Amino acid sequence: MPVLKNDRFLRALLREPVDITPVWMMRQAGRYLPEYKAIRQKAGSFMDLCQNPELACEVTLQPLERYPLDAAILFSDILTIPDAMGLGLYFTEGEGPRFKHPIRDAAAVKALGAPDPEQELKYVMDAVRTIRKELDGRVPLIGFSGSPWTLATYMIEGGSTKNFAKSKGMMFEDPGLLHDLLAKLADSVTSYLNAQIAAGAQAVMIFDTWGGVLSPRDYEAFSLAYMERIIQGLTRENNGRRVPIIMFTKNGGQWLTRMAESGADALGVDWTTELADARVQVRDKVALQGNMDPCTLYASPERIREEVAHVLSSYGHGAGHVFNLGHGIHPEIDPEHAGVFIDAVHELSKPYHS
Amino acid sequence: MPVLKNDRFLRALLREPVDITPVWMMRQAGRYLPEYKAIRQKAGSFMDLCQNPELACEVTLQPLERYPLDAAILFSDILTIPDAMGLGLYFTEGEGPRFKHPIRDAAAVKALGAPDPEQELKYVMDAVRTIRKELDGRVPLIGFSGSPWTLATYMIEGGSTKNFAKSKGMMFEDPGLLHDLLAKLADSVTSYLNAQIAAGAQAVMIFDTWGGVLSPRDYEAFSLAYMERIIQGLTRENNGRRVPIIMFTKNGGQWLTRMAESGADALGVDWTTELADARVQVRDKVALQGNMDPCTLYASPERIREEVAHVLSSYGHGAGHVFNLGHGIHPEIDPEHAGVFIDAVHELSKPYHS
Repeated sequence: MPVLKNDRFLRALLREPVDITPVWMMRQAGRYLPEYKAIRQKAGSFMDLCQNPELACEVTLQPLERYPLDAAILFSDILTIPDAMGLGLYFTEGEGPRFKHPIRDAAAVKALGAPDPEQELKYVMDAVRTIRKELDGRVPLIGFSGSPWTLATYMIEGGSTKNFAKSKGMMFEDPGLLHDLLAKLADSVTSYLNAQIAAGAQAVMIFDTWGGVLSPRDYEAFSLAYMERIIQGLTRENNGRRVPIIMFTKNGGQWLTRMAESGADALGVDWTTELADARVQVRDKVALQGNMDPCTLYASPERIREEVAHVLSSYGHGAGHVFNLGHGIHPEIDPEHAGVFIDAVHELSKPYHS
Repeated sequence: MPVLKNDRFLRALLREPVDITPVWMMRQAGRYLPEYKAIRQKAGSFMDLCQNPELACEVTLQPLERYPLDAAILFSDILTIPDAMGLGLYFTEGEGPRFKHPIRDAAAVKALGAPDPEQELKYVMDAVRTIRKELDGRVPLIGFSGSPWTLATYMIEGGSTKNFAKSKGMMFEDPGLLHDLLAKLADSVTSYLNAQIAAGAQAVMIFDTWGGVLSPRDYEAFSLAYMERIIQGLTRENNGRRVPIIMFTKNGGQWLTRMAESGADALGVDWTTELADARVQVRDKVALQGNMDPCTLYASPERIREEVAHVLSSYGHGAGHVFNLGHGIHPEIDPEHAGVFIDAVHELSKPYHS
């Protein structure tokens, strides 16, 4: 493996000193980039693009050609595991992901197999290997998965949902069945992320997009517990270097103190929490990743720089901050604004690391 | 005016002793009730129903015929003010509220008039008067409005939104224009709620459905500040009795300490915060209203009672708790489950008030 030329992202996740604050953007390979849209059109469906390692590699690298980003993230979807379990993932325009065969009863949960990451999900591992080769040590590559609870909501609802009627219905009415499903998912996510690490992922992130719709007790029992189980099962080393784990529960700002005990090296934070408060809550036990409101990028370059300055000063001095948006970049954002944002992080963060 | 026979809701909001914990449900007059659906079909569109004081009164009272609720809430919509300002509110199946004439520039903000509550919104005041008469002192009547920020998001986006691209775009790029719009809305909400109080509303609630999508600083500047302005302008008395104000920012659990300083008598709390923690945060300065996850009502009667017991014990002993759901009741809920919920609150709360 080639020597890693820029390791500021990995260092910050482990709260080691860096020269400037590293930055990347959730969904940095995505629809705001015209070059992404061109490839997407060529590839066919969104899943066709995910399942083509060469094209997945190409779109993963696109934002790195434009911007001095400190990390690359595998181009894929959070729902690859349920798809590999046979639920039949597809996407409808404007309605998001859907499953042909949702999970509604004990028989369906029982019938779920554990996908072999190097078989049913080989296209993901091939993409990781291809990207690592093409990256040639420029920046680290992040692998990822959805959290068990987040995957379960889509699998039970059959797609996106506003009220979580069926998934919470199962949680309240048949919690044992939901626990069975979550346990299966946790095991599959563990082997999936371990396979990504074996294939070359240098950090992994667990996206708990929907943990924040739960009560504190239900969050601990149905989402956090299974992320902790995954973290306990992960290979923490890749070629002699520690593989940091980032855990991100959207709208989880109230539970950061508890999340800091999970075993994750870093927590994603959305913009509804001040990083200064978040840092107090996690007592410097973990690094923090975030947290500018992605809508800031609709504003002028001057305003974007102001907001970057605020987020940097909110985290304050010292190691342990990876700059990111608090959520994925929106498709309508002007790519030049993304560039202003990334440059501002690097330029304005120097004083915080002297 | 007739004597109020059941004042436990008003007493709890003012943190005065009660015999049992009062309970009502957001959207208690709504689609989960077959008798509501029958009237809704008869009335025509949703707005036709809101604008017919007799029918609005009838649906307001429907849940009180079924359940021993401790409050009635005016049947109306949070978007009546922008509609009265000429934006042309209408509803599309599955897509929620829409405006024919969204607000996009300074000229549109400048052109907005202040609706006279007894003219353009007379149908609301007539409904309040009719309901008060029909209630005949059984329980208090709650009036309400959307918060300025919440109204502004719909007015700027032209309807519901996921990303708040246009409203946050204005916030970041032209904050002065957004402040102009919010100031106009705050004035209109103030006179609208004062007119509801004059017509007979015995408590008022401000629904800040979308304050929780803001950063802490933006929440204070663009949502909370305008709710405080409204609270300062409200008539706090009706026939010699104090009119309590309830403020509810969905997903605002991180900001309860700040919200307790707003002048509101009570804060709505959603289920992502434990009431025990919320009570510590607000230091018994205000009452708390909430906070069972409405999805609990999908579960069995036994499970519903368990959850009621948990919420009651989380708030603990003493005055200042109004039981409610953390969000509106879902349309698919079995009305019998709602009944189990309400009875459980009354039955299980006795020991907390001895």
